[in-house]
Amino acid sequence: MSFDRAVAQSADLPNSPTEDDPRHHVVVIGAGFAGLQLVQSLRKSGVRITVIDQRNHHLFQPLLYQVATTILATSEIAWPIRSLFRDRPDVTTLLARVCGVDVTNRQVELADGASIGFDTLVVATGARHAYFGHDEWEATAPGLKTLEDATTIRRRLLMAFEQAERETDPAKRQAFLSFGVIGAGPTGVELAGIIAELARHTLWRDFRRIDTRQARVMLIEAGPRVLAAFPEDLSTYAAEALRRRGVELLLGKPVTDCTAEGLRIGETFIPCRTAVWAAGVAASPAATWLGAKGDRAGRVEVQPDLTLPGHAGIFVIGDTATVKGPDGHPVPGIAPAAKQQGAYVAKVIRTRLTGKPAPAAFRYRHQGNLATIGKGAAVVHMGRLRLRGKLAWWVWGLAHIFFLIGTRSRTAVAFSWLWTYLTGQHSARLITQGTLTESNE
Amino acid sequence: MSFDRAVAQSADLPNSPTEDDPRHHVVVIGAGFAGLQLVQSLRKSGVRITVIDQRNHHLFQPLLYQVATTILATSEIAWPIRSLFRDRPDVTTLLARVCGVDVTNRQVELADGASIGFDTLVVATGARHAYFGHDEWEATAPGLKTLEDATTIRRRLLMAFEQAERETDPAKRQAFLSFGVIGAGPTGVELAGIIAELARHTLWRDFRRIDTRQARVMLIEAGPRVLAAFPEDLSTYAAEALRRRGVELLLGKPVTDCTAEGLRIGETFIPCRTAVWAAGVAASPAATWLGAKGDRAGRVEVQPDLTLPGHAGIFVIGDTATVKGPDGHPVPGIAPAAKQQGAYVAKVIRTRLTGKPAPAAFRYRHQGNLATIGKGAAVVHMGRLRLRGKLAWWVWGLAHIFFLIGTRSRTAVAFSWLWTYLTGQHSARLITQGTLTESNE
Repeated sequence: MSFDRAVAQSADLPNSPTEDDPRHHVVVIGAGFAGLQLVQSLRKSGVRITVIDQRNHHLFQPLLYQVATTILATSEIAWPIRSLFRDRPDVTTLLARVCGVDVTNRQVELADGASIGFDTLVVATGARHAYFGHDEWEATAPGLKTLEDATTIRRRLLMAFEQAERETDPAKRQAFLSFGVIGAGPTGVELAGIIAELARHTLWRDFRRIDTRQARVMLIEAGPRVLAAFPEDLSTYAAEALRRRGVELLLGKPVTDCTAEGLRIGETFIPCRTAVWAAGVAASPAATWLGAKGDRAGRVEVQPDLTLPGHAGIFVIGDTATVKGPDGHPVPGIAPAAKQQGAYVAKVIRTRLTGKPAPAAFRYRHQGNLATIGKGAAVVHMGRLRLRGKLAWWVWGLAHIFFLIGTRSRTAVAFSWLWTYLTGQHSARLITQGTLTESNE
Repeated sequence: MSFDRAVAQSADLPNSPTEDDPRHHVVVIGAGFAGLQLVQSLRKSGVRITVIDQRNHHLFQPLLYQVATTILATSEIAWPIRSLFRDRPDVTTLLARVCGVDVTNRQVELADGASIGFDTLVVATGARHAYFGHDEWEATAPGLKTLEDATTIRRRLLMAFEQAERETDPAKRQAFLSFGVIGAGPTGVELAGIIAELARHTLWRDFRRIDTRQARVMLIEAGPRVLAAFPEDLSTYAAEALRRRGVELLLGKPVTDCTAEGLRIGETFIPCRTAVWAAGVAASPAATWLGAKGDRAGRVEVQPDLTLPGHAGIFVIGDTATVKGPDGHPVPGIAPAAKQQGAYVAKVIRTRLTGKPAPAAFRYRHQGNLATIGKGAAVVHMGRLRLRGKLAWWVWGLAHIFFLIGTRSRTAVAFSWLWTYLTGQHSARLITQGTLTESNE
C-alpha cells in the first residue's frame, strides 16, 4: 500500500500554527462519543477545531456486538467522521495516528512526523481490552472494540460451525461447537445471548452432519453474578433468561488460561475453539503521551474540571480518563458518560473564551443501565424504574435506534431488526478476509 | 487462526463414496451463477449433490462495483451458500478449497488432503483477472471479483482523498486526486461513472483543503470505443454521458506500465495513485486440474454438450469454459450465460438418469446487454430494443433488483439506492482493514 510513502511526503499541515488564523484552536484526539459531543457542543463558539482520529469513521460501539453476530452490516453503525462535520467549516478532520503530545510547546505529534499546535487539547481516545497481564490471550479470545474486531469475531463464529461440520471425531467436533464468552457485563451477556440464538434458531437447518442446537455457549464471569452493575433482581432475571436460551453460566471463577484448544476456568479445562473477550478494558496510551499519572487500567487521573493536573489547556475525557461520580464510584465507561464529559468541556472552553466564571466541577448524572439478552428479553434500570422482559426489550431497541446518527442508519437498523425478528434469519453471515484462500495454503 | 489444524484433523467426508448412499452423486465446484442454477434445476431429480466452494457466500458480482464505490454494504449482495440450500436435504455444502481432480478415479482432491468421489462432476469455478503477462500490476491496480477486492478498492479510493487532503505539494496532490480505471467494458464504465459522482457530488463538502470536484477520473481502453459489446450508437451515448460526468476517456491506447506512481498509456506517463483493473479475465485453474486444453485465457474447451472431451461425466460451465454461441462468437462471460449453462447441464443429467434421449447441443440465447453510467444514465440493448438515458437506467435498476436473491436483499438494495438517489450520500464510506493502525507503523 502506498500510504506510508504518501504521509512521509506530506509537509506542513493545514492547522499547524504557522497558518495565520487568529481563532482559538481546539484539537480533539478521537471521534468517539466524547469527542463527537464536544465538537457538536462547540458549534458557533468562534473557535476552530481539528479532529484527529486514526480511523475514518465514528463507530456506534453499543451495537458492535450485532455486527459480530451477523445481524447488522458494518455500514449501519459507522459513519465517516468528515461527513458528520460537512456543514461545519470551523471543523477540520484529519485521518492520522497520534504518537505523542508535547505539553510544554502545545503540539500534538503524529506518527508520520508532522505536528499540530493547539491552544486547547482534548484527549478522548477511548479504551482497548485488558487481559490482566495475559496479552497472549488476545490471539485466542479477541475483544470487541473496532469494526475489524467485529468482522474477525463473526468470521471465527461462522468458521467454527463450518469446521464442526467437517469434523468426524465427536470430541473435536464438540470443541468446535463450544463457544466461550468471557465477562458477563452487558456486552458479554448480549454476545452470549445472540450466539445461543444463532445456534438454536438461525443456523440449524443449514447443516447436514451437525445439529447446531447442540452447541455449548458458555458465559464465564469471575464475579458472583451477571450484569453486576444492575440491581440484584434484574441480574437474577437476566441469568434465568440466559439459561432459558441455553446459555451455560460459569460464575465465580476466573479464566486462568486461554489457548486455541480451550479455556481453563479455575482448575477445570474446557475444550472450546472459539472465545470472545468481554472482560476488562485498558485506556489508550494517552497517559504515556501526556506523561501523566494513570490508574491501574491506564486511565488518566484528572482534575474536577477534567483537565490534566498542572495543564489547564489539556482535557482528558471519556474512557481515557478516570473520574469520580457524585456517589464516590468511578464514572462508568458508557456512551452517556462520555457525552456528558464532551458537553461539559465545551462549556468550560466557552466560558474561558468569554471570560465568564468557570462552571462548577463536572458532575456525572447517571441516566440508567440497559442490556438485552435476546429476542424479547432485556433489562432496564433507570432511577426507580426497573423493567424486564418484552417491554424492556422494546425500550432497549427504541433507545438504541434513537441514538444512532441519521435517518439512513435508523431506518436500516430498524429494518434489519424487523427482518431478524420476523424470519429468525441474519443477513450478514459473511466470512470475509482470511478465508480459505488466504489462510489454508 | 486455528483453521489449518482443524481441517488437517478431519478424516472421511460426509459424501465420500465410502458412505452408503445409492443415489447418483453430483459434485459441483463453485457456487456462482452457473453452479447455483445447476443445483436449483436439479431440484427433485433424485440425485444427491455436494457443492464445494472456497468461500461461504454466493456473490452477486454485477453489483460488486457498488460495494467498491461505497453505495452498497457487503451483506446486501452476498448470501451464505448453505442458507440458500437450507430446504434442500439433497444438497450438502462444503467450505473447502479444491486443488485437483482425479478424472480416472472420479475424485475431487481438496487442499486439506481429503478427497470426494463423484458420479458426475460440474466445474463452475469462474474467473479471475488477467494482467496479460504483467501480474506485478495487480498490486497497483487490483481487480474486482470478490468482496475483499471490493473493500480493498473502497479503502484505496477513500484513502486517496485523505492523502490528497494532507498533501501540500500540488503535483503530488493532483496524483492522489487522479483515478485510473483500466478497461471500458460495463464494469469499467460503471466504476468510472460512480467514482466521478463520488468526487463531484458526494465528497466535496467534506474536505477543507482539496476540492474533490477537481479530481481527474480516467477511463482507459485499448480498443477504439467504450462498451464494445454494444451497438455503436449506444457506445457513443455512453461516452458522451461519461464526459458530461467529468470522466476523461483515453481510448485506443493500451496501458503499458502500471506503478504506484502512475500509469503509462502508450508512451505517456500519467501520475495517478489509484487504479482499478477492469480489463481482462483469466479462468480459474480448472483446466490444469482436469489436464484439459485451455484457450489463451485458460478456459476449458468443451464439447457441444459442455462435457470435457473424453469424459462424459465431467462438465465445465460458466466463465471456466469457452463455448461458441450460435453466431460463432464465444458466449460472453455474463450471469445469464452462466445460468443457461447450469440449467442445460441439469437437463443433461436428468435425461441420462431417466434414459431419455440426450438434449441437443447447448445453445446460448443472448438476452441483452445492460450497463449503467451514473445517476439517470444507462444503456440497454435487448434484441431490437435499444434504450438510453433515464428509462434505460430504471430498466437497469429494476432488472438488477429482480435478480437479487430474496426480499431482504431486494428491499435493502432498493432502499440504499433510493437514499443515494435522493440525498447524493453514500452510506458505506468505510475504510476498514489495513488502516493507519496496521499500515503506518
